[in-house]
Amino acid sequence: MRILVANANTTAAITEACVRAARAAASPGTEILGATPAFGPRVISTRPENVIAGHALLETLAAHAGQVDAVVLAVSHDTALEAARQLMPCPVVGMTEAACLTACMLGGRFGLVAFGVGIGSYEELVARHGLATRCVGVRRIAATPVDALADPAAVQARVLEEVAVLAGQGADAVVLAGAALAGMNRALQPRAPVPLVDGIACGVRMAEMLVALGLPKPGAGGYAAPRGREAVGVSDALGALLRGG
Amino acid sequence: MRILVANANTTAAITEACVRAARAAASPGTEILGATPAFGPRVISTRPENVIAGHALLETLAAHAGQVDAVVLAVSHDTALEAARQLMPCPVVGMTEAACLTACMLGGRFGLVAFGVGIGSYEELVARHGLATRCVGVRRIAATPVDALADPAAVQARVLEEVAVLAGQGADAVVLAGAALAGMNRALQPRAPVPLVDGIACGVRMAEMLVALGLPKPGAGGYAAPRGREAVGVSDALGALLRGG
Amino acid sequence: MRILVANANTTAAITEACVRAARAAASPGTEILGATPAFGPRVISTRPENVIAGHALLETLAAHAGQVDAVVLAVSHDTALEAARQLMPCPVVGMTEAACLTACMLGGRFGLVAFGVGIGSYEELVARHGLATRCVGVRRIAATPVDALADPAAVQARVLEEVAVLAGQGADAVVLAGAALAGMNRALQPRAPVPLVDGIACGVRMAEMLVALGLPKPGAGGYAAPRGREAVGVSDALGALLRGG
Amino acid sequence: MRILVANANTTAAITEACVRAARAAASPGTEILGATPAFGPRVISTRPENVIAGHALLETLAAHAGQVDAVVLAVSHDTALEAARQLMPCPVVGMTEAACLTACMLGGRFGLVAFGVGIGSYEELVARHGLATRCVGVRRIAATPVDALADPAAVQARVLEEVAVLAGQGADAVVLAGAALAGMNRALQPRAPVPLVDGIACGVRMAEMLVALGLPKPGAGGYAAPRGREAVGVSDALGALLRGG
Amino acid sequence: MRILVANANTTAAITEACVRAARAAASPGTEILGATPAFGPRVISTRPENVIAGHALLETLAAHAGQVDAVVLAVSHDTALEAARQLMPCPVVGMTEAACLTACMLGGRFGLVAFGVGIGSYEELVARHGLATRCVGVRRIAATPVDALADPAAVQARVLEEVAVLAGQGADAVVLAGAALAGMNRALQPRAPVPLVDGIACGVRMAEMLVALGLPKPGAGGYAAPRGREAVGVSDALGALLRGG
Amino acid sequence: MRILVANANTTAAITEACVRAARAAASPGTEILGATPAFGPRVISTRPENVIAGHALLETLAAHAGQVDAVVLAVSHDTALEAARQLMPCPVVGMTEAACLTACMLGGRFGLVAFGVGIGSYEELVARHGLATRCVGVRRIAATPVDALADPAAVQARVLEEVAVLAGQGADAVVLAGAALAGMNRALQPRAPVPLVDGIACGVRMAEMLVALGLPKPGAGGYAAPRGREAVGVSDALGALLRGG
Repeated sequence: MRILVANANTTAAITEACVRAARAAASPGTEILGATPAFGPRVISTRPENVIAGHALLETLAAHAGQVDAVVLAVSHDTALEAARQLMPCPVVGMTEAACLTACMLGGRFGLVAFGVGIGSYEELVARHGLATRCVGVRRIAATPVDALADPAAVQARVLEEVAVLAGQGADAVVLAGAALAGMNRALQPRAPVPLVDGIACGVRMAEMLVALGLPKPGAGGYAAPRGREAVGVSDALGALLRGG
Repeated sequence: MRILVANANTTAAITEACVRAARAAASPGTEILGATPAFGPRVISTRPENVIAGHALLETLAAHAGQVDAVVLAVSHDTALEAARQLMPCPVVGMTEAACLTACMLGGRFGLVAFGVGIGSYEELVARHGLATRCVGVRRIAATPVDALADPAAVQARVLEEVAVLAGQGADAVVLAGAALAGMNRALQPRAPVPLVDGIACGVRMAEMLVALGLPKPGAGGYAAPRGREAVGVSDALGALLRGG
Repeated sequence: MRILVANANTTAAITEACVRAARAAASPGTEILGATPAFGPRVISTRPENVIAGHALLETLAAHAGQVDAVVLAVSHDTALEAARQLMPCPVVGMTEAACLTACMLGGRFGLVAFGVGIGSYEELVARHGLATRCVGVRRIAATPVDALADPAAVQARVLEEVAVLAGQGADAVVLAGAALAGMNRALQPRAPVPLVDGIACGVRMAEMLVALGLPKPGAGGYAAPRGREAVGVSDALGALLRGG
Repeated sequence: MRILVANANTTAAITEACVRAARAAASPGTEILGATPAFGPRVISTRPENVIAGHALLETLAAHAGQVDAVVLAVSHDTALEAARQLMPCPVVGMTEAACLTACMLGGRFGLVAFGVGIGSYEELVARHGLATRCVGVRRIAATPVDALADPAAVQARVLEEVAVLAGQGADAVVLAGAALAGMNRALQPRAPVPLVDGIACGVRMAEMLVALGLPKPGAGGYAAPRGREAVGVSDALGALLRGG
Repeated sequence: MRILVANANTTAAITEACVRAARAAASPGTEILGATPAFGPRVISTRPENVIAGHALLETLAAHAGQVDAVVLAVSHDTALEAARQLMPCPVVGMTEAACLTACMLGGRFGLVAFGVGIGSYEELVARHGLATRCVGVRRIAATPVDALADPAAVQARVLEEVAVLAGQGADAVVLAGAALAGMNRALQPRAPVPLVDGIACGVRMAEMLVALGLPKPGAGGYAAPRGREAVGVSDALGALLRGG
Repeated sequence: MRILVANANTTAAITEACVRAARAAASPGTEILGATPAFGPRVISTRPENVIAGHALLETLAAHAGQVDAVVLAVSHDTALEAARQLMPCPVVGMTEAACLTACMLGGRFGLVAFGVGIGSYEELVARHGLATRCVGVRRIAATPVDALADPAAVQARVLEEVAVLAGQGADAVVLAGAALAGMNRALQPRAPVPLVDGIACGVRMAEMLVALGLPKPGAGGYAAPRGREAVGVSDALGALLRGG
């Protein structure tokens, strides 16, 4: 099975970290490919960047259509997830989506810890997934994903503090939201009162599950594959997916 | 990996059907065990039966504690799921829970098809899982699970009719809710406009995923393992889990 | 009129305290009977205990079917309330349900004060009753119901502190949730800024009201009496109610 | 115990019908008084009329302050209920509020049947009471309350049709909303599949319950009695309540 | 274009302040008229006062029906807004409604700052407008509207403190709710981290917009003009609007 | 005042129709500019197209930053609205957003009529704006926007049918959602039972209002202007806005 781990920003180091975490989490026999967009923001931190990155991501995915069995979006905002799901002929999973759904099976409610002020959208993201009633809250730490890559140890204490706050508010599990945090949960788990959920690991395992189930894509409705759509200035690969057939 | 497929009613034929479906869905190397409660309703169809079955299920699970790596509840009402999750030292997944969470990754909204007037609780069950905003509705067919076991072909046409209704209402996927429907999705899928989601298959794959992630149980809050609890008239195994330690 | 005050755990001292509170609250001419289950948890404090107690409670109720005019569940978790309501041929009221509905008629929003970390479910209970938008919050005090029975004075100061917090958050009334708190509201009311609502008193008065209204049970839907249901290993009385007719 | 049944419109025949229904529903020893406003709409059927009637109702209530033990608002829109509750030194219950809260204790969800296109507000009223998730819907019949007083038999068949629709949608009980329908439930109940709930009967019994509980009014917050408020052009009685003290 | 700025309480100084603010905010060519009710509360601060003021407001509006192109309610509780909208033959806008809808176009979520403990209803007001999910919260300052008129500078520091709290909670804009605060936003804006939204200015501009759009009133449903309604003890003007035709 | 009417797809005929409608709706003295993206879908009809169009729209807007006083998004999906609002130094209004907010001031609830199966997202769009509780539903007609441009008369009867359905469901106003429907409301209004709301007209008037209010952009939070953000492969104009300063 081949799973594409697709970053939505143009920082290759984040892609590589996610690929490493994905490989550590994958089942034997699963091949992990990484992809970094050709254009767009270095690191997504505002709403306009997230929109630009959505387009860049779709171009990246289109280039792999037909060559992979599933896609994991390696971007904590689940950028363009619904569009990617409609576009691609294979399962697509968002890393934060996967982590939140997994957390739902660990207890009653979960919390999220994320980096910086970001694009202000993790609460909106949880609501977009329809999971607002299962989320006790989002806590942010004053560091950038790049900081975390450069010096992971420095942010671990801060993450643990916020995990403790969320557990005190009733979180039975905490999602560590951020591609740059990929894999950090293993180091922190022994010191945390509740399970720490990693988006890349969950995303890879959820993608494997969806491939194993072998379900078809929806043939009707708002997630049916595009057909006969025309667009200007997109790649041949993306244009072909929009035209369908 | 050993996964317990635990029925909550006392009809062994349903347990056996679920075990077969679970084995068909499991990864290579996963061993499936079935269990049927020693007391309780033949088939759960009212609220009191569901309550009795909850107790019976916990007794059944307690007898397997420490001997299995995960549990899948083979009962479409996800009977006593939260209690089982708190009680057992391993992951516990409900079959309808697993199907609904899986459906969330296939599109925007899902529907359910279930048997008979039942205990009137599938809408309540979806709401209990916090997924009401992702569910377009529940459709019921005038047949019992026992009918479906006896003559599966007879109910397939009815199921497909309701799937079409739900797709027309905006469902991007449809959960076939009912242990007795386990595996029917494969026969019906070619004639359905949207993916048909099977609770046993999803439950087994979700359970495998949770085991693979290797997360600890919550150490605090409303899902922390019981400790020092005393009960009268329960089995030694269940009593030991309640006492903890 | 005969009202059964049914405890769901096996601590007879709690049953007795609830019966005393019920008698103090009842109208002249109302006879109060108490009942304690034959099996199950000493004091419900975890989700598995609540499930076991649900079964035990149904057995207890079945033994009184036809001999009482109404039932009040003397357990603050409203354990198995919906199942008991479907099962029994008479009105069934949960003590916390009754208190919350009463609080709705005293002002705009209410709060709850409860014991210990408990089963973490009072917020879930309020939501189960559909009253989440009318509840400002739940505050817990670090004591057990048994403590409160042994030394009620010791917990009163703590209760009053939490009442003040809830009033400051906008609660127009506060429910004292816990069978062991039955009747404590009378002692505390003079020092509280808002009305304190007692579940046993409300439950008894609500039960009297329902008996007086003389409404039939639903003849259709998810609360219609069981009919033709078969179960293994239940008492003759419970089996008879499940078979109906 | 003296309970004031306060109409909010100026049609005395409706007041009289409600008083009769209230007397039929009250406990022995409860005295029922009726009151009709001195000004305002003949029958409330639009939003402006409901606003005018709110003022008229408060004047009516103020004239009885201190002379009654509780108030039941005999107007299906629960006109000015929250204001009356804050204003009066005794419990105040709305007839539709009381019926909806009672219906909550009869099953999972309820429906309403109401007259005419009315002020379009029964859905809004249920939401105002925070009970939207417990209500399956509102059905309206093409008749006026005055018609129903003149020829009750003529509207009964229509009411029963709508009750059946609501039961089919999952209502476990149906509230007959409308002061002019007071008492009609008794005639229709034998032909209805679910319990029919009457606002006046529930209101009177709920008022009796609140008097029996003997709870104080909130001393703080948005329902605390007015104090030091000045108004122009109101009656001495209403002015005195606004000044408080 | 003539816009009526209608106060709902009987303090003419508040009317005058609102008229001044309205004139400062209006487009060239818009004529602003003020109106103060003939009866009712000096300053609305409790629920009963708000109900009385509703009636007084409708009388005030009826006296201007046909003579103005639109109405802005100069009362921060949007008193009787829905009724006024149904009653009047021209657009009617509430000042807080207008401010909240405007705030929705400035960012994701907004907050409100209001005076005193008031009638406890700003949260309820936001919910009544269906905007609860867009509101981060309401903060109150310990001063009366009259204080603010007498010495505006004294309350500005307090208002700014609460604006900062709301911005810290995620408010992208803050509504200054209170007729007596009309126009204060201009003085405070340079020191505020987010835009401050003034109800009178928004109300006047929204009213102008609605007049410019030239849309008819609803001809059916719960906002269609009254027709054939009869009321006792109302003015000729209000009676005529209720009779319609 | 200069307002940019920005299309999000590459069909210039739609831009031109929207510009014409905008000019018809604008106040005297308002100058309307149109803009069509340089790349992206011909007509947005799937989720991937909407994502691509979001990027294209931001590029289009960036090219006009500093040269216009406000922006109206002439695309019924309010494509990239939140990102555009954060990005641009002037007010940005979505045409469907503006129509829905306007509809909120016309009555209690509104409906939408839209073209084709589209991207299945009008319900999601209304929810994204937090207005789900004010929307009775969305009705779709089997025609494309291009059809409507080619032969508007042919779709008018269908639109009116759906307007009638929505009014019957309780809509007090109906939004005609679709850039290609711009201005059609004027032709249909005489035959409609409730006001028909046009997104372009509302958008232009709302934009004028926001310019007149003169409020600053948020200086903090999730809508504060980008600062120091770097992106690859974007235009100089867009890059400059992301860098800020």
